[in-house]
Amino acid sequence: MQNKVNVLLIGCGGIGTIAALNLQRGGQATVTAVLRSNYEHVKAHGFSIKSIDHGEVEGFKPSILRNTIPNITTESLPPYDYIVVTTKNYADIPPSVAELIHPAVTPGHTRILLLQNGLNIHKPLRAAFPTNILLSGVSFCGSHQVAPGRIIHEDDDELYIGAFRNPALAAEVEDAAAQEFVRIYGAGGNCQPQFQPDVAFSRWRKLLYNACLNPICAITDLDTGRIQLAEGAVAELVRPAMREIQAAASACAGVELPDETLEKMITLDPVTMYNPPSMQVDVRSGRFTEFENLVGEAVREGRANGVSMPTLTVLYGILKAMQWRTKERRGLVTVPAAEDHTVKK
Amino acid sequence: MQNKVNVLLIGCGGIGTIAALNLQRGGQATVTAVLRSNYEHVKAHGFSIKSIDHGEVEGFKPSILRNTIPNITTESLPPYDYIVVTTKNYADIPPSVAELIHPAVTPGHTRILLLQNGLNIHKPLRAAFPTNILLSGVSFCGSHQVAPGRIIHEDDDELYIGAFRNPALAAEVEDAAAQEFVRIYGAGGNCQPQFQPDVAFSRWRKLLYNACLNPICAITDLDTGRIQLAEGAVAELVRPAMREIQAAASACAGVELPDETLEKMITLDPVTMYNPPSMQVDVRSGRFTEFENLVGEAVREGRANGVSMPTLTVLYGILKAMQWRTKERRGLVTVPAAEDHTVKK
Repeated sequence: MQNKVNVLLIGCGGIGTIAALNLQRGGQATVTAVLRSNYEHVKAHGFSIKSIDHGEVEGFKPSILRNTIPNITTESLPPYDYIVVTTKNYADIPPSVAELIHPAVTPGHTRILLLQNGLNIHKPLRAAFPTNILLSGVSFCGSHQVAPGRIIHEDDDELYIGAFRNPALAAEVEDAAAQEFVRIYGAGGNCQPQFQPDVAFSRWRKLLYNACLNPICAITDLDTGRIQLAEGAVAELVRPAMREIQAAASACAGVELPDETLEKMITLDPVTMYNPPSMQVDVRSGRFTEFENLVGEAVREGRANGVSMPTLTVLYGILKAMQWRTKERRGLVTVPAAEDHTVKK
Repeated sequence: MQNKVNVLLIGCGGIGTIAALNLQRGGQATVTAVLRSNYEHVKAHGFSIKSIDHGEVEGFKPSILRNTIPNITTESLPPYDYIVVTTKNYADIPPSVAELIHPAVTPGHTRILLLQNGLNIHKPLRAAFPTNILLSGVSFCGSHQVAPGRIIHEDDDELYIGAFRNPALAAEVEDAAAQEFVRIYGAGGNCQPQFQPDVAFSRWRKLLYNACLNPICAITDLDTGRIQLAEGAVAELVRPAMREIQAAASACAGVELPDETLEKMITLDPVTMYNPPSMQVDVRSGRFTEFENLVGEAVREGRANGVSMPTLTVLYGILKAMQWRTKERRGLVTVPAAEDHTVKK
């Protein structure tokens, strides 16, 4: 029997936990998971999972649980074959993903899978790790951590894996790494990821959800069910935004997204699921949003390629102002003291 | 000594209370004020006012306090010379202003002053009261009710009065009514309203604030101070929205708003006042917003006159979705029951 693949999973929320479960159940990987806020709970009780793919799972634990990023040098650890990053990716809030994972990466060996949303997220990683294969994971999973260690998984796990192209590496080797990951993830039998070598297609397609529905739900505080019910919201906000992504995908990457894909994405979450997408959950929780990678990059790419992006430009401006608000609430920016203006100066 | 003018004031919040104070202090008007949520408090204690124009005023009461709209017929009341409406004006939430004030209006006699924001608000009133003079009041007042009966007034009372033109009435008579109101309001000496016969100018100019700053603050939950501080918010949201109003004002009404007026409006509220404009206060309080009159009418008028309104269109769509959310929270719309989607059907 061959050695198991050594996987480091960073971030174990809704998506990360389902990934850990699939990898572990397939028996071909050892999973070291880095947890943050839910570490103590999961160490004591494991995960409690209610999943459309896996049924009810009580007490699940990855092979190794940690609450720090491993430092393979100072801890003398064997190299990780894969690092799977499922944390949020904030382009504007340090630390960057590259800074975060740096101590765990073996140059030239570790494959880094970004199971994260947005456009151009590989660029800082390629600069930091020019000899490592970078993989793209695009997930439609509908999995949420509703309390520490408690996962509700309502949408079929639909996962697209491919390689971000690095001109310095051989495309066949990159694709082989992506395919290996597909195999070890799918070995558990409950989810079969798809190898999709056209990463641009996967990522632009997912932007239909993530640059459109996600921010519109976050800004209006209507979940994906209610946004379908609210009069005019799809016609006046969601569909115009999606048409801009459709045009930008074509102009920027030659990716053609047919109208039916837009319509399918609008109804991806059934109304009665009342699913608040990630950005809405972030805003409700007073957390930062990934607006730069989800909306900002799309707007910049589109405009640079001559595409008019009026709807997304406004959504982007609003999200940027909301991020500033979160920064102020967290003490990262300060404002001048209030003055009494009821008396004439 | 001539008889006092008989004024009915409907709505006694931040703007209404300052209006009552000016009218009453001038000595030329008897003010009957209709209060709602603050009625019991004001009946017992009067208003407590801290004002940049009037200083500190304790225990102020209009001549007559009521908590219902007078019915001049069933109550056998003398006719009102003026009805001053300072309530919110929701085009999409009944009752309409016309329905509300109907029992207090004497056809052909009562002048109805809409001291309210937005475009085309006179149209339903003209249909309901075709023989009454309709007046427009546009106020930059910066006055807020911070607790029942407690008014903080931080911006100089700047009030523009004019007549909404009714082709069935003589313009001189309409203008004379506006000028009379200016006189009785200004007689107190603390605020001199301006007679501004070009109502379209006053209203489009105020839309620079009310269709732009107001919704942007409401949506981002940043007040007018913070919106000036947040990186990019003025350049990417406020100024583009104002340019659309500028273009629409010109195309729809021949109103030319110079660039300096836009810049002045951006800084109208000093940063350190941290003033949450009305719509932001409404959203924070879970109340409806006047988005149809402030943004919707501007978008419709602009578009009908061939003006591209991309920013305001998105703001309008978002506000409309937020209004739906408020309707749902208040039980005015209902949604299908949630279903469990963790189990495959």
